[in-house]
Amino acid sequence: MRPLRCLAVLLVLVLLPAAAWTLAPPRFPGPQPRARQGTNGVGAYEYETRYFRQRLDHFSFPGVGDEDEPAAFFQQRYLVGRGGGWAGPGGPIFFYCGNEGDITWFAANSGLVWEAAPRFAALVVFAEHRYYGESMPFGSKAKAYNNSKSLAYLTAEQAIADFAVLLTDLKRNLSAEGSPVVLFGGSYGGMLAAWMRLKYPHVAVGALASSAPILQFEDIVPSTIFYDLVSDDFKRESLSCFHTIKDSWKVLDEQGNGQDGLMKLSKTFHLCQTLKTSGDLSDWLSSAYSYLAMVDYPIPSEFLMPLPANPIKEVCRNIDSQPEGTSILERIYAGVNVYYNYTGTVGCFDLNDDPHGMGGWDWQVFKPQFQSV
Amino acid sequence: MRPLRCLAVLLVLVLLPAAAWTLAPPRFPGPQPRARQGTNGVGAYEYETRYFRQRLDHFSFPGVGDEDEPAAFFQQRYLVGRGGGWAGPGGPIFFYCGNEGDITWFAANSGLVWEAAPRFAALVVFAEHRYYGESMPFGSKAKAYNNSKSLAYLTAEQAIADFAVLLTDLKRNLSAEGSPVVLFGGSYGGMLAAWMRLKYPHVAVGALASSAPILQFEDIVPSTIFYDLVSDDFKRESLSCFHTIKDSWKVLDEQGNGQDGLMKLSKTFHLCQTLKTSGDLSDWLSSAYSYLAMVDYPIPSEFLMPLPANPIKEVCRNIDSQPEGTSILERIYAGVNVYYNYTGTVGCFDLNDDPHGMGGWDWQVFKPQFQSV
Repeated sequence: MRPLRCLAVLLVLVLLPAAAWTLAPPRFPGPQPRARQGTNGVGAYEYETRYFRQRLDHFSFPGVGDEDEPAAFFQQRYLVGRGGGWAGPGGPIFFYCGNEGDITWFAANSGLVWEAAPRFAALVVFAEHRYYGESMPFGSKAKAYNNSKSLAYLTAEQAIADFAVLLTDLKRNLSAEGSPVVLFGGSYGGMLAAWMRLKYPHVAVGALASSAPILQFEDIVPSTIFYDLVSDDFKRESLSCFHTIKDSWKVLDEQGNGQDGLMKLSKTFHLCQTLKTSGDLSDWLSSAYSYLAMVDYPIPSEFLMPLPANPIKEVCRNIDSQPEGTSILERIYAGVNVYYNYTGTVGCFDLNDDPHGMGGWDWQVFKPQFQSV
Repeated sequence: MRPLRCLAVLLVLVLLPAAAWTLAPPRFPGPQPRARQGTNGVGAYEYETRYFRQRLDHFSFPGVGDEDEPAAFFQQRYLVGRGGGWAGPGGPIFFYCGNEGDITWFAANSGLVWEAAPRFAALVVFAEHRYYGESMPFGSKAKAYNNSKSLAYLTAEQAIADFAVLLTDLKRNLSAEGSPVVLFGGSYGGMLAAWMRLKYPHVAVGALASSAPILQFEDIVPSTIFYDLVSDDFKRESLSCFHTIKDSWKVLDEQGNGQDGLMKLSKTFHLCQTLKTSGDLSDWLSSAYSYLAMVDYPIPSEFLMPLPANPIKEVCRNIDSQPEGTSILERIYAGVNVYYNYTGTVGCFDLNDDPHGMGGWDWQVFKPQFQSV
């Protein structure tokens, strides 16, 4: 069951990139924020954790200190499959281009790579994306995320250069310069895999870009397309569910007007802390709908959260099936409970689950809007 | 005659890149330091001079100030051919990737591009390389070359990104998004053209890289190869000339030992100022031999300096033909006079002709030695 599920996750996941969002993009939930423990990377998928001394800026000569200054480098984490199935030097290498999160999380949810590797006698490598997981420049996440200067090097261009340098060094160390490399990636990681194949054609012979929205940019598709698709997913399951959600935003805004309203909202939604603005609640709800659309798999999964099969159908069933007279916001609460609390173990909800607020993904999404080509 | 000569210059010029030099690379002589005036770009090759607001750092989010800070941008100069021969939107664009110097100098010495353009009804564009000519970040050459921080953005990677951004914008402005682009470049500019075709395959359909030593790096060819080739060029003309030059270094070092010797050397070589070390003179002579090998054309030319046809043959004739009893250093002086003073108009020689000493090219040559991939 497990490999099939992971394959499905890899193939179906659609995380839209930066420019296609007109509203704020969904907050990134962080690595397995509430997922079950003990399922990541051990057992069927065994790997060794290694670190590589990576250059902070691949395109300009050190601007942040010089060669000897530690700030010019950082430790990049990568995982190397341990199965003994590799054909050795000359045998293929499957290289996963880590996306916006802890690399162990992607290693645990990319069954296709692990499954296919033995058939090709390939070595499996998962490389972590800079500024995520343990691969922090400047020594710590707090320092890396300190300000726009420290975050300046969090770009896709630098990330694929990291992968190219790491891979080249790894192949040399393994005396595997002649080994063909196939890149893998899902969602943003798939975009990285495709871009890396284009920008470093001498480094990889191919790339499998799963659910990679490479053309999802504002000047190519309508800027509303992401939320149009999310809406369609709910409409398809139940038109009344769709309308309940649509109508709820206005109700939420009205009720969130004033301290009493905010306290009432906090109680309705079982929040751990009293809301400061109704906008925080809207963002939290909107994230749930977006992520539900991304992981609306026909089988139970736990990539973002532990979820039943066809989770949108479940959400809408909960929204629609409340007894006559249930208020619109209580219906909404019953719905998002499927996403945020399917295991039923959450006592209250903490909206600020990501301690770093505007995390790395938001930075990557919003900052590039004035970059070209 | 002129187009043929320019074609020859473009095809024969070999300027070796960074890593292939074990000795100091030849000093870059700057744009036509002593060449005749009035020959650059007017007449047969007419163009309009334009400027483009270019991003300083294409790969990281602004580290040097932000969007609104002028330091994040600079004015890049480019030349657009004025001949009316362009087929218009949809018609081809010939784009010259400027190398390490004033772009008007390359425009004046790249006859092939101008010559071929009318036959293809192509628009000609010459783009200046950042940190050269008028395309100075930070507002002035003094500020751009101030220190390692200000020079950090002088890299080939940033330069080809400049070209890609400029070209994309230019095509949009001309409603020529569909126009096929062919890149041109000679020497380092040829390397840029080839790299740009690889790194931005969607921007150009092809690149003509003339005399571009793309494989001339230390881990590919022996590190002595550049000076071996220079030596061979002199050996081929005259073995005694080669040996005179070879023996001269020791004599020069011996004579340059002490103030009297330095004064005597300065007099022998007609220098404007008294030498501080014999090394400065060695560099000046070594540069002449290297450049002579680069422009040893079978026809008179004036790309680096006004020179006769087969200038190395001329140099060696001068060295070999001095009367019996002429000292070795006097022979050397007679030889390099062909390179530094073929027009016979120089009264004395100023070794520090480049007011910026370690100019942009030296920076590009030496700084990358610890960069990888």
